[in-house]
Amino acid sequence: MKLWQKDKTALKAVEKFTIGKDQEMDMFLAPFDVLGSLAHIQMLEQVGLLNQSELNMLTDALKGIYKQIKAGKFTVEEGIEDIHSQVEFELTKILGNVGKKIHSGRSRNDQVLVDIKLYLRSEIETIVVEIQRLFSLLLEQSEKNKVHLLPGYTHLQLAMPSSFGLWFGAYAESLVDDVLVLQSAYKVANKNPLGSAAGYGSSFPLNRTLTTQLLGFEDLNYNVVYAQMGRGKTERIVASAFSNVAATLAKLSMDACLFMNQNFGFISFPDELTTGSSIMPHKKNPDVFELVRARCNQLMALPNEIALMTANLPSGYHRDLQLIKELLFPAIQNLKDCLQMIQLMLANVVIKENILEDEKYKFLFSVEEVNKLVLGGMPFRDAYKKVGQDIESNQYNPAKNINHTHEGSLGNLCTEEIKTLMEKAVAEFNFRKTNEAINKLVS
Amino acid sequence: MKLWQKDKTALKAVEKFTIGKDQEMDMFLAPFDVLGSLAHIQMLEQVGLLNQSELNMLTDALKGIYKQIKAGKFTVEEGIEDIHSQVEFELTKILGNVGKKIHSGRSRNDQVLVDIKLYLRSEIETIVVEIQRLFSLLLEQSEKNKVHLLPGYTHLQLAMPSSFGLWFGAYAESLVDDVLVLQSAYKVANKNPLGSAAGYGSSFPLNRTLTTQLLGFEDLNYNVVYAQMGRGKTERIVASAFSNVAATLAKLSMDACLFMNQNFGFISFPDELTTGSSIMPHKKNPDVFELVRARCNQLMALPNEIALMTANLPSGYHRDLQLIKELLFPAIQNLKDCLQMIQLMLANVVIKENILEDEKYKFLFSVEEVNKLVLGGMPFRDAYKKVGQDIESNQYNPAKNINHTHEGSLGNLCTEEIKTLMEKAVAEFNFRKTNEAINKLVS
Amino acid sequence: MKLWQKDKTALKAVEKFTIGKDQEMDMFLAPFDVLGSLAHIQMLEQVGLLNQSELNMLTDALKGIYKQIKAGKFTVEEGIEDIHSQVEFELTKILGNVGKKIHSGRSRNDQVLVDIKLYLRSEIETIVVEIQRLFSLLLEQSEKNKVHLLPGYTHLQLAMPSSFGLWFGAYAESLVDDVLVLQSAYKVANKNPLGSAAGYGSSFPLNRTLTTQLLGFEDLNYNVVYAQMGRGKTERIVASAFSNVAATLAKLSMDACLFMNQNFGFISFPDELTTGSSIMPHKKNPDVFELVRARCNQLMALPNEIALMTANLPSGYHRDLQLIKELLFPAIQNLKDCLQMIQLMLANVVIKENILEDEKYKFLFSVEEVNKLVLGGMPFRDAYKKVGQDIESNQYNPAKNINHTHEGSLGNLCTEEIKTLMEKAVAEFNFRKTNEAINKLVS
Amino acid sequence: MKLWQKDKTALKAVEKFTIGKDQEMDMFLAPFDVLGSLAHIQMLEQVGLLNQSELNMLTDALKGIYKQIKAGKFTVEEGIEDIHSQVEFELTKILGNVGKKIHSGRSRNDQVLVDIKLYLRSEIETIVVEIQRLFSLLLEQSEKNKVHLLPGYTHLQLAMPSSFGLWFGAYAESLVDDVLVLQSAYKVANKNPLGSAAGYGSSFPLNRTLTTQLLGFEDLNYNVVYAQMGRGKTERIVASAFSNVAATLAKLSMDACLFMNQNFGFISFPDELTTGSSIMPHKKNPDVFELVRARCNQLMALPNEIALMTANLPSGYHRDLQLIKELLFPAIQNLKDCLQMIQLMLANVVIKENILEDEKYKFLFSVEEVNKLVLGGMPFRDAYKKVGQDIESNQYNPAKNINHTHEGSLGNLCTEEIKTLMEKAVAEFNFRKTNEAINKLVS
Repeated sequence: MKLWQKDKTALKAVEKFTIGKDQEMDMFLAPFDVLGSLAHIQMLEQVGLLNQSELNMLTDALKGIYKQIKAGKFTVEEGIEDIHSQVEFELTKILGNVGKKIHSGRSRNDQVLVDIKLYLRSEIETIVVEIQRLFSLLLEQSEKNKVHLLPGYTHLQLAMPSSFGLWFGAYAESLVDDVLVLQSAYKVANKNPLGSAAGYGSSFPLNRTLTTQLLGFEDLNYNVVYAQMGRGKTERIVASAFSNVAATLAKLSMDACLFMNQNFGFISFPDELTTGSSIMPHKKNPDVFELVRARCNQLMALPNEIALMTANLPSGYHRDLQLIKELLFPAIQNLKDCLQMIQLMLANVVIKENILEDEKYKFLFSVEEVNKLVLGGMPFRDAYKKVGQDIESNQYNPAKNINHTHEGSLGNLCTEEIKTLMEKAVAEFNFRKTNEAINKLVS
Repeated sequence: MKLWQKDKTALKAVEKFTIGKDQEMDMFLAPFDVLGSLAHIQMLEQVGLLNQSELNMLTDALKGIYKQIKAGKFTVEEGIEDIHSQVEFELTKILGNVGKKIHSGRSRNDQVLVDIKLYLRSEIETIVVEIQRLFSLLLEQSEKNKVHLLPGYTHLQLAMPSSFGLWFGAYAESLVDDVLVLQSAYKVANKNPLGSAAGYGSSFPLNRTLTTQLLGFEDLNYNVVYAQMGRGKTERIVASAFSNVAATLAKLSMDACLFMNQNFGFISFPDELTTGSSIMPHKKNPDVFELVRARCNQLMALPNEIALMTANLPSGYHRDLQLIKELLFPAIQNLKDCLQMIQLMLANVVIKENILEDEKYKFLFSVEEVNKLVLGGMPFRDAYKKVGQDIESNQYNPAKNINHTHEGSLGNLCTEEIKTLMEKAVAEFNFRKTNEAINKLVS
Repeated sequence: MKLWQKDKTALKAVEKFTIGKDQEMDMFLAPFDVLGSLAHIQMLEQVGLLNQSELNMLTDALKGIYKQIKAGKFTVEEGIEDIHSQVEFELTKILGNVGKKIHSGRSRNDQVLVDIKLYLRSEIETIVVEIQRLFSLLLEQSEKNKVHLLPGYTHLQLAMPSSFGLWFGAYAESLVDDVLVLQSAYKVANKNPLGSAAGYGSSFPLNRTLTTQLLGFEDLNYNVVYAQMGRGKTERIVASAFSNVAATLAKLSMDACLFMNQNFGFISFPDELTTGSSIMPHKKNPDVFELVRARCNQLMALPNEIALMTANLPSGYHRDLQLIKELLFPAIQNLKDCLQMIQLMLANVVIKENILEDEKYKFLFSVEEVNKLVLGGMPFRDAYKKVGQDIESNQYNPAKNINHTHEGSLGNLCTEEIKTLMEKAVAEFNFRKTNEAINKLVS
Repeated sequence: MKLWQKDKTALKAVEKFTIGKDQEMDMFLAPFDVLGSLAHIQMLEQVGLLNQSELNMLTDALKGIYKQIKAGKFTVEEGIEDIHSQVEFELTKILGNVGKKIHSGRSRNDQVLVDIKLYLRSEIETIVVEIQRLFSLLLEQSEKNKVHLLPGYTHLQLAMPSSFGLWFGAYAESLVDDVLVLQSAYKVANKNPLGSAAGYGSSFPLNRTLTTQLLGFEDLNYNVVYAQMGRGKTERIVASAFSNVAATLAKLSMDACLFMNQNFGFISFPDELTTGSSIMPHKKNPDVFELVRARCNQLMALPNEIALMTANLPSGYHRDLQLIKELLFPAIQNLKDCLQMIQLMLANVVIKENILEDEKYKFLFSVEEVNKLVLGGMPFRDAYKKVGQDIESNQYNPAKNINHTHEGSLGNLCTEEIKTLMEKAVAEFNFRKTNEAINKLVS
């Protein structure tokens, strides 16, 4: 058996294994770690654990570090375990022992908790902004192409006439529901765990209400045991909400791949956005859509992955939770990329016109024919039989004008109503409030 | 090769395979199917597709069926495929051809869509009510047991003093966040898909705004393609929100199993709620908690299961969606059972007192000792060293009184604040509004 | 708070909750429970814990019960918890106190373990038999249709010529790999846990090697702690192997739905196997394929579901494991149904001929053209350029005969080689050995 | 709307998005890509598509690149998309136009297929070797500590005496079943897809049997459509097999965390392998076990993740498959790390002796007492009653010697039998055969 005690290589391996990707992942948290500290020290001064002069020195130094981070000039150095240590190390380099005082009344546990909540809160805002852009583009395309018909399928079988107006508009409205789900995730993320220490509180007379206000949180995670329990849970809830957006993009991408297929041929894209071949001029591979689909399906799997990593762990901190960072943080970047890629593609989509002129689509109009007869007074049963007989005797020649008038139909897309839904959904976040708090803290 | 055409057995097998568990599952939807029809026929009359007398006849008959369903006297009969057919069959039996008119301007697709939305909306309300009961019980136990200390663990290692006040209270506050997530699920479920027909709208002059009001929906799923896209998506979002509640119950159950273990021995239950053995008097198996844990972990897997069944399906209805019913509906029943079982257990829990008197827990107080010295003026570094030395020289005799004062700590549980969080969270649903609409429809 | 002790309703609810679906699920285990008991009592007699006459009485009674079960005349009665109790109850009814002796040297834990292993072993055999039938049908269709070409897609874009020979044959060969994965699952299931008692062995002088032989197991789960650890693990491994077969059927179903779509139109089915409409004569809904796809995707989610229910449980029995039965056992029935439904469909598929005559497919042959020139001596680069120029100048008129000769290509399907792969894969199971042991035990 | 055509930034973003992590991930494949090419060119020469001199030049150059890769001196350069392009680029730099000839009769699709199969085959071997090391260590510890008793739990309640011999031995035997599952994964990976081109074969007269032999594959993926279908499927099967090993390590880690908890206190580790605190001398955080548990649970989620990314994709290549590389390849590295970390920990574990002397464990022996009376001739029912009465009247003083003799019990661990199981399981892989083929190819 190994005598590991003298085995430096083994211990080095342990260190490498336990640190994992933390140095890289913690860079996502860096600005938020500083924000948390800025609020924490104001509170420490208010309750008498720092004096005014210490507060000033620490505040100035932290703002300096914040600027460095924003300028991309800050990294977690080799040999330093995580962002919290790196910031403390910088402060001590500048301020000596005063630098160490930021750690009073705080544990690594509630520090990373507050970092993650601030980070997720911010990323939800970024995603909502991207969603709004895509939403606008979808509605724009929906309106622009509303007269262009498309076959509608059920069971992947030709069923009824649809339109590009409906198709684009459907994905716009899907994003509204996705934003509704993000509201809840935001509410869960927008609560302050700072002051819960290692999950059992502190004998210092902390003022958690003050840090809550300073950081622009809507409320506290009161119970300190629950504050710690929020680790893993918050990430799963946020991942779940993001996976919903991903589901919308994945479905749109699947449709796009199908519609670009030559047997459908409903949409196409400029050569630069597909990959092709000069000996197969019809071939335009939809790589972007395929990769968006795959990235989004990957994100769909994330809540389950977090669930498996946290299932059946009793309450209290476990180191397992560290690894969630490296699953969730890159996934959020991927989602932002996907939202942008889809915008790029849809801004450049080319719609095929007059698709339904093709003979093979003529039965799409049979339900319309029946309904016309019914609206003209014929009992449904008779109308149905008549159309069936017309078809059988080759006398079926449907008019291809569609007159749908009800809400949300191809003749009445309700674009304005859908826009209003989105505006109301976004307004609920009240991003301005948190942003004002953050701006006040760093300026 | 089989000549199936003449093979009655084979065709019977196909029928059995395609119907699956629909007859059983549709009973969950039965009352909601009637509600949808009651609204639909009022709308048909308003737009001129039924006359007043037909409306009256259909309304009376449907209310009669509704009462039968509520009285448990209605089933989907052998040979009838689903609830929609069964209701239509009953109506036709009573009213003849008039009975068939409820199908005008509606497809099986939007009918099941609206049934599912109404059902899920109702089940969310039921779950929220059960959550509130458990929440009250948890806070009651938290207050009642707030002076009883408990070891707090991190990494499953003894870390700091905790309390039963904190432990019960943490799960109460966890339920608040779970209710926040249910808000979004409710918003998504609380939109009207009726009138989207087979997912491509209808040439009848439907008034979807009217059915929206009659059914107490907050808004419409406007775009008809999106309305259909909501199938599977709504279920996944609701399942995801429920799985969150499940995660809370599963974690509580894991804690309970551990705390009942004889090496911990923190809580116990009356014999009738555990299983034991006369030759192993210490053995009290926590079967209820184990099964709650397992049921809840099963529910945690559900959103992923739905995701897998719907991943990469292009837009438009697919029959695959039918099977989601048999996953989700029983899971909701299980969750309700689990919420009730946990209440039964926690109402009867017996708390061990004076746990921390045991010598093995004395180091839990070392952080407290350090903090006391710091608050008395000693620099942290020196205080830490002194306590370390006291421990090493066997002079460590911590006072076991804990004085935590900050928000959410064991000396300041913030029970009222947490109650307020829950009240605000529940108020947002505005269940009264939908219930009034439904009552008006059936009375 | 409830005083549950006097609350009969509450206790009834607990009983209902803890029994769950066990009475129904245990019927899957019934014959195997009897088999386990038949072997156990032979062993008890051999080690002196039963006398010969007791053995004879018990054996006769158990064989009687076995016949009842096989005849479908045995159920777990209301008020009896599970199959083990029901069998013991029957034995005691017949034999009095002797009936209770089957429980010596055995715990409910190893009893259910051996039941599950025997059940899964048997179900794997059944599934392999069904797979072989489908495999034969696929190869038959592959050979029969090998001259009929089909477009081959990459990125869902038209790419190269394929054939029905290749398409059917691909799924046949897929099943070979699925059977390979089942081999491992079978090996894991085919080990004897009986004698591990509650997971910590027994002080009785059991002869576990004897029960291993009598039950036709390949080997023992030696370590008694591991034998218990096999609960949940065995189910997950078997579910995982089955999910693989499901993946093959789901993909085939997706292809079928696409190929039945009118934009493709490659295959069709007799009216009786699809659902249609007289006013939409082109519409033939592929309900069977959609439901097979959904059932199979559901099965794909199963290993993860079991993983979530067992994750992070320490070693030793937990009641959580009970619930796996109600996930896995019906899933196995579903898989058998799916295998049969796919056979029914594919036995009746109608292939479209001359698909590639359609002008839109002509570029499929461009790679062929290039390769022909290369094989004729022209450098690849020049050949590629020439074909590109021909296409651009409208002089591209590809010969549509394909001459692929290498192993597994459309001109050389290697049907015999694939058959041999399957035969070798199936031979490894050695089902005969276990069946002989079982037959000996019951006859 | 963006006019992306002139928007270089947008196109750059597309390129970055589509390449993703391929450059990094392809380094895992680098040596295997060269191996595939070495076999491919021998075959090209044999069928007349290369001459002998070209073969020699290409072989020498490829062997040079192989050495560079093995020496860690090869990377995919900025601006080059993947490993296949990089190798071809190097060859062309050295050999000019001859370098390009390796691409004849091969597509990027079958090239990456064969790379992945060779890589996975090799990684399975590496994992099996690590498993064998851990297996030996576990059996060594099992034998060394076989006399040291441990409480055995069911339902997490004290149940029966167990031992460290059983505990270590259980995990050893668990690894045997894990290796059995790896056998199937190996068989699936060990088949040759090379020559399937883009999934529809080639008009070149390839000799796929030759490359199969040269690369040491057991057999071919014959059907070219199936060969392509193996992408994603092979990865899922291998991930599934690895996830099984992960499940064993995760459970062991959970046990270890519990046993290190002070309420149990069964095992401990040298300070250097845990993290602690001078003021909490009892606290020894099991970070390594927690992170192994989390990494392994992450791996447990992987098969589902791959399933979600490939669900419902029709046959034929899709670009989605590219992303599986970045999920699976790092996961394999993680598993190797975990196997090594567990070895390091278990080689240094310190066992607590005489655990069962503690009064609280005395009821563990009550079943033993009953069985002793039974073996002494008392009917079970009476023996059970007597022990129950002794306990009630405080006359229960169990002898704490345990005499279990049957196979796999604490008195008869069957270490040799378990070793034999592992040896047989490993022998089935026949790694030597493939290694000889590979050595011949590169030397």
